[in-house]
Amino acid sequence: MYSYPRALRKLIAELEKLPGIGTHTATRLAFHLLDKSQQEIEELAGALTGFKKNISFCSKCHNMAEEDPCQICSSSERDQSLLCVVESPRDVIAMEKTGEYKGLYHVLRGLISPLDDVGPEDLALANFRERLQELQVQEVIIATDPSTEGDATALYLKKILQGSDIKITRLAQGLPAGGDLEYADEVTLSRALSGRSEIKYD
Amino acid sequence: MYSYPRALRKLIAELEKLPGIGTHTATRLAFHLLDKSQQEIEELAGALTGFKKNISFCSKCHNMAEEDPCQICSSSERDQSLLCVVESPRDVIAMEKTGEYKGLYHVLRGLISPLDDVGPEDLALANFRERLQELQVQEVIIATDPSTEGDATALYLKKILQGSDIKITRLAQGLPAGGDLEYADEVTLSRALSGRSEIKYD
Repeated sequence: MYSYPRALRKLIAELEKLPGIGTHTATRLAFHLLDKSQQEIEELAGALTGFKKNISFCSKCHNMAEEDPCQICSSSERDQSLLCVVESPRDVIAMEKTGEYKGLYHVLRGLISPLDDVGPEDLALANFRERLQELQVQEVIIATDPSTEGDATALYLKKILQGSDIKITRLAQGLPAGGDLEYADEVTLSRALSGRSEIKYD
Repeated sequence: MYSYPRALRKLIAELEKLPGIGTHTATRLAFHLLDKSQQEIEELAGALTGFKKNISFCSKCHNMAEEDPCQICSSSERDQSLLCVVESPRDVIAMEKTGEYKGLYHVLRGLISPLDDVGPEDLALANFRERLQELQVQEVIIATDPSTEGDATALYLKKILQGSDIKITRLAQGLPAGGDLEYADEVTLSRALSGRSEIKYD
């Protein structure tokens, strides 16, 4: 049967490998690119081939960084006694966006997930104990996702810290801001209930 | 404020230029690619830079082709007296998929759209009259979209053909197969009504 030229089919096949991009989207993207100048395409291709080489990871917190140690680890304005443990560099960005957190981070670059064959040894925890001592951490905030994997990882971190005098906390679970109680799922609602806070009288 | 390394931001910015891809999707794609090997990324980049060079257009029907004239134009099994006018190479694929059409194509590579500053002179029509004569076309099937642009283009083609003895037809408009009359919009329904066909008694 008649079909697209080979070079176009190859591009569509490559684009289809990306997550969330099916044949239709890949075809649409390929046709979009066909209308672009070779220079614009080269820029995209250049950004693709170059980006991995230019990204390194901080040897202390394992976050993505342009220098080592990273901007956050080497900042003197950060509270060295507070360590927030997150799954990925994206979570660091999310935390930073709040503008509320002034401590340091530890990026696990994964969560414990037996189904995906990811164990504690696959997480960036080799220098974790060492960091706790070096920084004289007072509190570890576990900011892993409120999922099975996040819970498993939180439990494992608790086990590591057991016996030390470091305080452990976990991000609150409950109704999201602007959310609708009526549409909240049972797990969220029961967690919001058990984590309810008292309103003091004036 | 703290943000992603420069190389990653550059890639996200490049991906965001693609249609239907916003900051969130672009970030997700970039992180997905970060987990891939450099070789896999190079393959995608290679497909991108190479594909435009390897795609040419048929000088007769203006469809995308690997050789000139294209597979369809040079086929002896095609009905040379039937010419289907479509907007883009994607429409050729759609028509071919039906397995019903055995004539030739003429790909306009655009539709008349005054709002987007696209006039008849921007369509691939330079050799249209010449082709009609050369092929001794009996019928021109106008298969442009059932949109304002498609209608305008159909009208223009009608004007070109005026006075010749070539039959002009346009694809039927009506309810899509598997569609629901209840949910059909008024325009579709009124076109389905005016284009109704008689059911003959046995």
